[in-house]
Amino acid sequence: MRLADERTGIEVVAREECLELLADEVVGRIGFVVAGRAEVQPVNYVLDGEAVVFRTAAGSKLDAATRGPVVFEVDRIDRVTRSGWSVIVHGLAREVTSYDRVELRERVAALPVDPWAPGERRHLVRVVPASITGRRVGRSS
Amino acid sequence: MRLADERTGIEVVAREECLELLADEVVGRIGFVVAGRAEVQPVNYVLDGEAVVFRTAAGSKLDAATRGPVVFEVDRIDRVTRSGWSVIVHGLAREVTSYDRVELRERVAALPVDPWAPGERRHLVRVVPASITGRRVGRSS
Repeated sequence: MRLADERTGIEVVAREECLELLADEVVGRIGFVVAGRAEVQPVNYVLDGEAVVFRTAAGSKLDAATRGPVVFEVDRIDRVTRSGWSVIVHGLAREVTSYDRVELRERVAALPVDPWAPGERRHLVRVVPASITGRRVGRSS
Repeated sequence: MRLADERTGIEVVAREECLELLADEVVGRIGFVVAGRAEVQPVNYVLDGEAVVFRTAAGSKLDAATRGPVVFEVDRIDRVTRSGWSVIVHGLAREVTSYDRVELRERVAALPVDPWAPGERRHLVRVVPASITGRRVGRSS
């Protein structure tokens, strides 16, 4: 079944497929608010069930900001065919700490979420989705 | 000359190279604030000098929000070599309207900024950079 957004004509990607697309990628962009302004940073991530998990450095803007609502975006673009898809997750970000259940801490600590960037990134942040939406443009069918 | 961010160890990309990277890409992500929360959307864009130009649909969240400070992110990631770069532009977004100088209106209207997505996107938005920063990770040298 192909769904289209009524206003834009863009194809809507169903939630199940959004999760498959999220599971296949390794880098997304986290959007958050600092002093009333939007910030966007690329991060490498893994999925923990439906949650997005990434690491941050202590003291970074990202670390300070990811204690509340965030948006997480992943896309894949083919500029030759002018086609692509994007998945957008809205959710609450929270650091995984010693206050969490042992089972959650151990599971998240074992995830293969090593940052590509140098430097220590001790803080594990987990974004629990409130909504997951996807769109696709330009696919021939 | 290779510069590195002292806190993170990540290589800093100089402004001139950031502009070259921006000029080479065609899709970026615009970050903005709606009701206190960050939103991120992919858009296809072109450069007008150092300004980022893209189209929006009337009545969209993006259209409503891009009347002030925004952030614009472009990256290229190689998951095999775990390397990549990102460029982040902070600036003020403003619609190009009939109140603008004829010279600006004509120049922007002639830019090859056709959205890939279907549907009318009449509004031309232009982001004038206040800052342009870039980072690169994982490049062997």
